[in-house]
Amino acid sequence: MQERAKTTRRSLLETAALLFAERGYAATSVNDIGARSGRTSGAVYFHYSGKEGIALAVVQARFATWSHLAERYADEAVPPLDRLVALGYDIANALAEDPITRAGARLWAERSTINAPVPDPFALLTAAATRLLAQARLAGHLNAHVRPARAARALVRAFFGVCSLTDALEGPAIVTDRLSDWWQLTLFSLCPVHPDPPTGR
Amino acid sequence: MQERAKTTRRSLLETAALLFAERGYAATSVNDIGARSGRTSGAVYFHYSGKEGIALAVVQARFATWSHLAERYADEAVPPLDRLVALGYDIANALAEDPITRAGARLWAERSTINAPVPDPFALLTAAATRLLAQARLAGHLNAHVRPARAARALVRAFFGVCSLTDALEGPAIVTDRLSDWWQLTLFSLCPVHPDPPTGR
Repeated sequence: MQERAKTTRRSLLETAALLFAERGYAATSVNDIGARSGRTSGAVYFHYSGKEGIALAVVQARFATWSHLAERYADEAVPPLDRLVALGYDIANALAEDPITRAGARLWAERSTINAPVPDPFALLTAAATRLLAQARLAGHLNAHVRPARAARALVRAFFGVCSLTDALEGPAIVTDRLSDWWQLTLFSLCPVHPDPPTGR
Repeated sequence: MQERAKTTRRSLLETAALLFAERGYAATSVNDIGARSGRTSGAVYFHYSGKEGIALAVVQARFATWSHLAERYADEAVPPLDRLVALGYDIANALAEDPITRAGARLWAERSTINAPVPDPFALLTAAATRLLAQARLAGHLNAHVRPARAARALVRAFFGVCSLTDALEGPAIVTDRLSDWWQLTLFSLCPVHPDPPTGR
């Protein structure tokens, strides 16, 4: 793809993410996306074949962000549970601050109003968490009653509740604090000894 | 209010709850509610002054259900953490099976499309959970690091994530199982000794 076309595509995607995050899917039009990005609605149709197409591209871009985040925690020199906690804070920060991630979350929540299947990111996160818990087990850092795959599934869903409800009830700025409260409770049940409660960045 | 008027009001409310739970707020019309309940749209306007009014009445009816549930767990003869777990299963069952509760949850999720403030039920649940954790502390059934109000807030949000994501990803029938996984992790961090992992009803 030509450099100029790439720039246009990215600019349209970022504008669409801002609008979807701010107003939701139903209240955002192809015209809005074109106008706000200083282009035309024709550009949206040309590069993404319309509103559904650009919404799904935003969702895919969010997955790419999360895959990169998960890869950053592959370094086996760091204790696995520390990596799990750090990954959780990174995702919470992205949910609070990154327009692509916020838009992706809102589009998933509004998926019943979108005329195409919207994939969910939870399998990806659950796989990453399962891997880290299994590594913690090998390192002797996991309580005996914890089963990695089951625990990872429960943790990802609980984590989603803490982040999304805190954002909805108290705003994005407080998410990291509330997440610390939750990690403090949760780590105690994962790890035989964990003297220092975790904190956000 | 006359008996007949009461019956009509209740029938309209239950029909509206079924439709809101099934189709969401935007896709449900006053005509649909009137027709499906064997009455007219005029009855909806007369008893609830329209779609917003009947939606808010559904939300209030859900709060009433949850208040009743919370009151059932006031019996101090039962250990407080057992009551907390039982209350959680009751709410999860209501979320999976009771149309009023399902509709209330969906209306709250879709609150940005409703032209009136939709109150949330989380303060009510957090207060109930705080009370039970404080009683557990007095009974010596709470780990020293757990602070009731903070822990209750985190627990309610995590609980919401486990229930709502499981329902969305795997359907309502599996919610109780996934909730058991989560309770097992969570109780371990709340309680110094808890030999028997909890199970659903």
